[in-house]
Amino acid sequence: MSKATGFVTLTTDFGLSDGFVGIMKGVIYSINPSAKLIDISHDIASQDIQTASFILGSAFSFFPKGTVHMVVVDPGVGSDRSAVAVETDNYYFVAPDNGVLSGVMERISFIKVMELSNKKHFLPEVSNTFHGRDIFAPVSAYLSKGLSIDELGTKIENLMERVLPEPEINQDSITGEIIHIDKFGNLISNIDKKSFEKLVVNRDFTIEIAGDIINHLSRSYADSSTDKLLAIFDSFGKLEIAANQNRAADILRVHRGEPIRVVMRR
Amino acid sequence: MSKATGFVTLTTDFGLSDGFVGIMKGVIYSINPSAKLIDISHDIASQDIQTASFILGSAFSFFPKGTVHMVVVDPGVGSDRSAVAVETDNYYFVAPDNGVLSGVMERISFIKVMELSNKKHFLPEVSNTFHGRDIFAPVSAYLSKGLSIDELGTKIENLMERVLPEPEINQDSITGEIIHIDKFGNLISNIDKKSFEKLVVNRDFTIEIAGDIINHLSRSYADSSTDKLLAIFDSFGKLEIAANQNRAADILRVHRGEPIRVVMRR
Amino acid sequence: MSKATGFVTLTTDFGLSDGFVGIMKGVIYSINPSAKLIDISHDIASQDIQTASFILGSAFSFFPKGTVHMVVVDPGVGSDRSAVAVETDNYYFVAPDNGVLSGVMERISFIKVMELSNKKHFLPEVSNTFHGRDIFAPVSAYLSKGLSIDELGTKIENLMERVLPEPEINQDSITGEIIHIDKFGNLISNIDKKSFEKLVVNRDFTIEIAGDIINHLSRSYADSSTDKLLAIFDSFGKLEIAANQNRAADILRVHRGEPIRVVMRR
Repeated sequence: MSKATGFVTLTTDFGLSDGFVGIMKGVIYSINPSAKLIDISHDIASQDIQTASFILGSAFSFFPKGTVHMVVVDPGVGSDRSAVAVETDNYYFVAPDNGVLSGVMERISFIKVMELSNKKHFLPEVSNTFHGRDIFAPVSAYLSKGLSIDELGTKIENLMERVLPEPEINQDSITGEIIHIDKFGNLISNIDKKSFEKLVVNRDFTIEIAGDIINHLSRSYADSSTDKLLAIFDSFGKLEIAANQNRAADILRVHRGEPIRVVMRR
Repeated sequence: MSKATGFVTLTTDFGLSDGFVGIMKGVIYSINPSAKLIDISHDIASQDIQTASFILGSAFSFFPKGTVHMVVVDPGVGSDRSAVAVETDNYYFVAPDNGVLSGVMERISFIKVMELSNKKHFLPEVSNTFHGRDIFAPVSAYLSKGLSIDELGTKIENLMERVLPEPEINQDSITGEIIHIDKFGNLISNIDKKSFEKLVVNRDFTIEIAGDIINHLSRSYADSSTDKLLAIFDSFGKLEIAANQNRAADILRVHRGEPIRVVMRR
Repeated sequence: MSKATGFVTLTTDFGLSDGFVGIMKGVIYSINPSAKLIDISHDIASQDIQTASFILGSAFSFFPKGTVHMVVVDPGVGSDRSAVAVETDNYYFVAPDNGVLSGVMERISFIKVMELSNKKHFLPEVSNTFHGRDIFAPVSAYLSKGLSIDELGTKIENLMERVLPEPEINQDSITGEIIHIDKFGNLISNIDKKSFEKLVVNRDFTIEIAGDIINHLSRSYADSSTDKLLAIFDSFGKLEIAANQNRAADILRVHRGEPIRVVMRR
């Protein structure tokens, strides 16, 4: 396992208006004044575990080895859901056990999972509504200072899985769905480059979404005119529907969950 | 007084679009390259001194001792309102003298208040529209480097108070109001746990807001079904009206200032 | 040229929801763990090169000498547009060559412009949709560590210019336009103080915008009643139309591009 390096990332659905994120950073710096904090996103829709899982899954591997990734999208705060810390080859993760780590779990293996039961590393008073401040921030701070994950509680074997929806692949088609719409209105699907290339090889194909048909892949957004949809593999290896300097989501009027199909032509 | 540790927090109504916050950080780092900057909120509604005061009041005590808290919600910028620096046991505050520090003043005592009159610690040219950049940022930077507050100007005795609205407490009821609605649509009142417990002891009670009645306290958000309102003491000790994975503010269609009452039952 | 000091600013149209900005910071810290990152803005409207250029032009000079300013507003990502690094007396700039540096170019001279062609300083795999992560972030990180700009590629002589619109000045008037509307609804024009003072000297004048007339300059926002428009030179030396604790943009219902005239009275 990589040594902690002081880096801590934060991913929450807290927004930036109310001071919640600032307070968690204050708690972290109070415990580890040398911590280096990086926001991944605080604009996850309230209680949207799937999106948090997707974004963290795309992002975590771009950070320095030893980074502690803290995630607080936590509809069950104060109930009996568990809170956990996870050790992997290069990173630590601190989160509620509600499936929010499944985007990570798809990509790398977990060496050790600890249930956070040792109150010694919490704030002295733990509320029932803000475990981000009272539990996740201090535990992340101690990990970022080099505390062994073994000190945090009891080892457990399983995490709740809420795997992101998987595409259905058969001989002549892949049926997936839109799992994220980004700031530019680009539609990111759960169809990845490897599955696509394995299916297509040298055959012709069509990509179908919301009644629209695209029959080739673009190499860049600028490849197409601004009123036309294009299909491209995005920088995370997922099939994406986009439009040059335009919002594919608005052109198609679709939402997360919209089906998308790749079909072989005769 | 705690020694300055390089930490500076920022609370403004500047938003994050125009680069104003980045510019202030550039000014601070130019004076103190070792500063460590933490955003509390920049999404305070324009000129909303009450909310800035509430959020800073909730947040300031979670930061490392020696932190300089800088607040710039400043409708009177360029007029004859004063600008001040305040020393307390553990923190410094730098702000316009317009009531924005009253949420802090409710909680801790001020050791020394200085009017910022020594231009030596301002930027060389001071505009009439951006004291955040020209006065508050450089003064905060010098404080964070360890400059004595005495160097900043003239000692004064009083700050403008604009105390947040206080609840009315009598023998059988407390009448308060909603003072903040957070990102989750939770309604935070000005009724605190201590006043509540002192009134209720072992009696039955009802909580009334906007024609709705709640007659017990929940222990967590997950305690209730998603279409029902719940009452809970939040992580700052205030009575809060919420809904499990839902927005109480939308269910009740209320705004800041909405009355809320706790009434003893016969 | 100033020595790199580890400071890197980020200006993009990426928003803060999707984790893109966090990922770029992860890439920078992976290369230079001592970097100090400052956000200027990530809320530039998608593909709005003019606004990015305006905001960076206003902001860059307030940062410590040696700062690397990285800008990613990049509609041509993955096409054949160039990417460049620029050396100036006090700063470095890293950006696509699409005019986004013209606000800087108006103010200071460029010592050296390098086309980013040396892939050694990119991420090992370069996508066609996220050069912020794969090219601009790593190049900025290496510059912030002290790498010579000469190592980055080939020297070129010209950058694409897309100069912000300039006002028309004649004997009795200046005709400009609104080039930015800020978070407070203030209307910032392209008419600067120097041109204004040179024209007006001691003459009377009127400022005309959207059928409204203002005939004097205010010294501060608080100078006027809240329902009246006022004209003021802002903290960057530009003529601004504002309203005390009110949104001039909403009062006038105007957008960027709206003409504004200063006319001498007989």
